[in-house]
Amino acid sequence: MESIMSKQTILHKDDFEAMSDRYRATLINSISGFKSLGLVGTINEQGITNIGVFNSIVHIGAFPPLIGMVFRPDTVRRHTLENILTNKHYTINQVNASMLSRAHLASAKFDDDVSEFLACEFSAEFSNAGKAPYIKESAVKMMLEYRMHIPIPLNGTIFLIGEIIEIKVPTDIIKQDGFIDIHEAGTLTVTGLDAYYSTNVIDRFAYARPNMPITSLMNKSEDSR
Amino acid sequence: MESIMSKQTILHKDDFEAMSDRYRATLINSISGFKSLGLVGTINEQGITNIGVFNSIVHIGAFPPLIGMVFRPDTVRRHTLENILTNKHYTINQVNASMLSRAHLASAKFDDDVSEFLACEFSAEFSNAGKAPYIKESAVKMMLEYRMHIPIPLNGTIFLIGEIIEIKVPTDIIKQDGFIDIHEAGTLTVTGLDAYYSTNVIDRFAYARPNMPITSLMNKSEDSR
Repeated sequence: MESIMSKQTILHKDDFEAMSDRYRATLINSISGFKSLGLVGTINEQGITNIGVFNSIVHIGAFPPLIGMVFRPDTVRRHTLENILTNKHYTINQVNASMLSRAHLASAKFDDDVSEFLACEFSAEFSNAGKAPYIKESAVKMMLEYRMHIPIPLNGTIFLIGEIIEIKVPTDIIKQDGFIDIHEAGTLTVTGLDAYYSTNVIDRFAYARPNMPITSLMNKSEDSR
Repeated sequence: MESIMSKQTILHKDDFEAMSDRYRATLINSISGFKSLGLVGTINEQGITNIGVFNSIVHIGAFPPLIGMVFRPDTVRRHTLENILTNKHYTINQVNASMLSRAHLASAKFDDDVSEFLACEFSAEFSNAGKAPYIKESAVKMMLEYRMHIPIPLNGTIFLIGEIIEIKVPTDIIKQDGFIDIHEAGTLTVTGLDAYYSTNVIDRFAYARPNMPITSLMNKSEDSR
């Protein structure tokens, strides 16, 4: 790590302004850290299903269980927003390695009457909990119900918040303390606009207290994965 | 993966309501996907520096370069929010493996007059760009300036948005197209409240177009990392 740390680049506002739009979008999108990768499933009034690719999914609270997402209304993602505002329901489906190239394809600008389920060869799976389609191939997924959206005047984006009304996960990945082991389910993460990663477990740590040593929650010797 | 998929658990609102607060917080925090892990550095009017641990960092836009963060004002993180609202500046510092146990310790509830820099043995590093302290040990970091905050009435959280005014990264991890390779810098990711992961590169994909094959942006043969 010393060698990579040896030379540092420092960028400021005038550097950002001098960049091409594409270079800047790539750079700024990759600086915020590893991101949640989710395929958002919706359906419109005509019954056309839709998949949008999102990497701006953020935990808002546990009770009620709330998730936030950032929308750029001027992009291909408008179908997702329109469908959520109309039908109130949407699914978030995590992406594993076997789904990845199809998941990336779902970010393409398909014609209005084309469902990404068909174009990307995903299977729709329906639930009594809400109208939106799940992606059958996804192991970890949830149904949400629209709660509110907040326009962000700084750049015209929209921050949308929904409440989780259903969770579907493999039984084995729910641990004794409620922890859902999405790594064990093969969920991937993303940086920038297009860089995908799998994960390696480092550790789970117990609740931190001042001046106390950090202790592991995992019995590493029992963990033979 | 077939075996892990074989038995599925489905949870609904009444299941969430029946859980203990701690079990539910662990469960809901771990369902949103892999999250950005950042140490937020601030300073108060008395010159006491502070570090807050955040996993709710989300990209809002590239031009202007905006980052959002979710605050729970009733927690130990209030110092961070107070300092940002007073001083307008804060840093987000990514966490690598050598920093991890100290980073987790920074989430402990230290006394008001104790700086997490001292308590967690991090070094403060200052910049002309703004008043907030960087964490010297962090390889990938940025200074932000407060732009706005939005109270979320659904649960009393606050969504705060800042503009990136400075980025400091190792020169080698900035690629030709502007991509900042935070994996190469050793940046970690987090799920739930306390589970930490390193990453493995799968691929970078070119911009997706309908009915076109997905192509790699990485020359795997040249990538010997």
